[in-house]
Amino acid sequence: MENNIVEEFNDYRSKMNDKIMSSNNKIIKRIFNLDTNAYQEGSLSEVTKEMLGLACSMVLRCDDCVKYHLGKCHELGIKTEEIQEVFSIATLIGGTIVVPHLRRAVEYWEALGKVTK
Amino acid sequence: MENNIVEEFNDYRSKMNDKIMSSNNKIIKRIFNLDTNAYQEGSLSEVTKEMLGLACSMVLRCDDCVKYHLGKCHELGIKTEEIQEVFSIATLIGGTIVVPHLRRAVEYWEALGKVTK
Amino acid sequence: MENNIVEEFNDYRSKMNDKIMSSNNKIIKRIFNLDTNAYQEGSLSEVTKEMLGLACSMVLRCDDCVKYHLGKCHELGIKTEEIQEVFSIATLIGGTIVVPHLRRAVEYWEALGKVTK
Amino acid sequence: MENNIVEEFNDYRSKMNDKIMSSNNKIIKRIFNLDTNAYQEGSLSEVTKEMLGLACSMVLRCDDCVKYHLGKCHELGIKTEEIQEVFSIATLIGGTIVVPHLRRAVEYWEALGKVTK
Amino acid sequence: MENNIVEEFNDYRSKMNDKIMSSNNKIIKRIFNLDTNAYQEGSLSEVTKEMLGLACSMVLRCDDCVKYHLGKCHELGIKTEEIQEVFSIATLIGGTIVVPHLRRAVEYWEALGKVTK
Amino acid sequence: MENNIVEEFNDYRSKMNDKIMSSNNKIIKRIFNLDTNAYQEGSLSEVTKEMLGLACSMVLRCDDCVKYHLGKCHELGIKTEEIQEVFSIATLIGGTIVVPHLRRAVEYWEALGKVTK
Repeated sequence: MENNIVEEFNDYRSKMNDKIMSSNNKIIKRIFNLDTNAYQEGSLSEVTKEMLGLACSMVLRCDDCVKYHLGKCHELGIKTEEIQEVFSIATLIGGTIVVPHLRRAVEYWEALGKVTK
Repeated sequence: MENNIVEEFNDYRSKMNDKIMSSNNKIIKRIFNLDTNAYQEGSLSEVTKEMLGLACSMVLRCDDCVKYHLGKCHELGIKTEEIQEVFSIATLIGGTIVVPHLRRAVEYWEALGKVTK
Repeated sequence: MENNIVEEFNDYRSKMNDKIMSSNNKIIKRIFNLDTNAYQEGSLSEVTKEMLGLACSMVLRCDDCVKYHLGKCHELGIKTEEIQEVFSIATLIGGTIVVPHLRRAVEYWEALGKVTK
Repeated sequence: MENNIVEEFNDYRSKMNDKIMSSNNKIIKRIFNLDTNAYQEGSLSEVTKEMLGLACSMVLRCDDCVKYHLGKCHELGIKTEEIQEVFSIATLIGGTIVVPHLRRAVEYWEALGKVTK
Repeated sequence: MENNIVEEFNDYRSKMNDKIMSSNNKIIKRIFNLDTNAYQEGSLSEVTKEMLGLACSMVLRCDDCVKYHLGKCHELGIKTEEIQEVFSIATLIGGTIVVPHLRRAVEYWEALGKVTK
Repeated sequence: MENNIVEEFNDYRSKMNDKIMSSNNKIIKRIFNLDTNAYQEGSLSEVTKEMLGLACSMVLRCDDCVKYHLGKCHELGIKTEEIQEVFSIATLIGGTIVVPHLRRAVEYWEALGKVTK
């Protein structure tokens, strides 16, 4: 059942991204391209960049962004202890207002762990 | 089925607004009145004002506010190409954190197009 | 049926908080402890502190935080007229972007009133 | 010298508010009027309302709003221990991102204490 | 003297933008390019787009962004009554927390009016 | 001259932090202690943690927080190319509203480079 929140998120995200990419909106298409490029290995590793994306998503309190970066962190093999340290820095910086997003993040991370790769 | 997200939003909004307007809270009632006045034709057209409301709602990442202004934009006959330009400016200003709200906005705009007027 | 939104919120919150407190994340555990201490009677009463928490949660537009503080305000016997004044100040400070959260807050407060203590 | 940050803030605020109130912008004039009304004694005391305004201003990280409400709190005779509890709740809710605003708030509160009434 | 706040803003902005564009940061350079493209005439006029940029900057409470878009609005010949309606919608949506930014925006708009073109 | 923005920031920060730590506010003192602990080497390195702090500070648009973490990054010997990648991810996530803070961050990073250690 926990897999469902992962699949549900990925399915909706893919469906709507396809719709957006098939439209004529050049500015948004370029933002999507930049988004792919920005997280590729450069002076910083992909692992560091995904953790940056995760922390920023938490302090900005965007559940879907948190889910996306948690998915990427999971693919890259980042460990639970490392994710917890990202969570703790984000919660400290963003305050207790981040806690409801932390709850959902913890739930999603657990669900990712049960996905058969 | 897509109609449902439009009806569901409008029904809940009406029900709760009625409840709020029937209470004794003068400050909030006046804010609601101001909200109606502010978007009426003045030096700027209603069309421009609704697009301002839409863009602000997107950068502030308020899905319900986005839905409300999309509904108004639809009533006023604003075209999809114009809405897309509002979306692109809001996404550029607000960053990729706006993208999940863009997905839901695109879905809602599509649903509005299927509503029989 | 209205009780459900109260129970649902409390159940999910308890389940996930237990999970978080059983992990090794010291920083987050300490933030949770601080959160308990900060709202205890001091120079300011618990009532005042919970209203501060409620107002801040509304302007920061965090539905779950609003629900939590509304629950506490209800336990402490704060009256509907007082809650409405907190709502009106928060809506004035935070602007119409707060209104969708106000709708859900009004609904939750009503649901709390129907909970048999 | 510390008085200067108080005078400077009040002078600029008065000058610009006069300019705004002398313009034809009805919506903004009404928002200004609401702002005066909302903080008047009602079901909640002025003291409680000013503390709500202060806490919201801190979590939203608006230095000028913090200064304004600190000035009001000072006029109403709110004690330093009470102000500190408002500060601590706001910092906990808003996170360490609030700390730079806390520094300026502490400085301003101290300056207010040196103003000869 | 009022010219100074305009010149000061433009000079610092140009100096730092040049520095940023002369660095190797491809992602940021592309964001800067997108920023130029997004406000060009398309389905929506430049005038409408600059007003969207102004409103979004106000609700996000970014003084420098407000100044930039006010400068553009001034170049495009947008009238004071129109600017005031943008201000009023932004203040209503964003709440009284926007007011300190409104004060500075009104001051800057006045300063722009005194700039000899 | 560029050193001044570094010294000025550090001096004011130290002075006010001392004042805050010498007060009786236990909650805030504990938040300050947590702040020190959270960035110490754990599962993640200090370098990674400071970059997380920097990125979060940028997307939350807190200039003083950005300065603090840039100072720490400089002490830890993080390279300009790495800092630029943090900047680019933060600007992409947070949008063009982050750009004025990017300008000040670039200026501060340059000033740090001229500080004789």
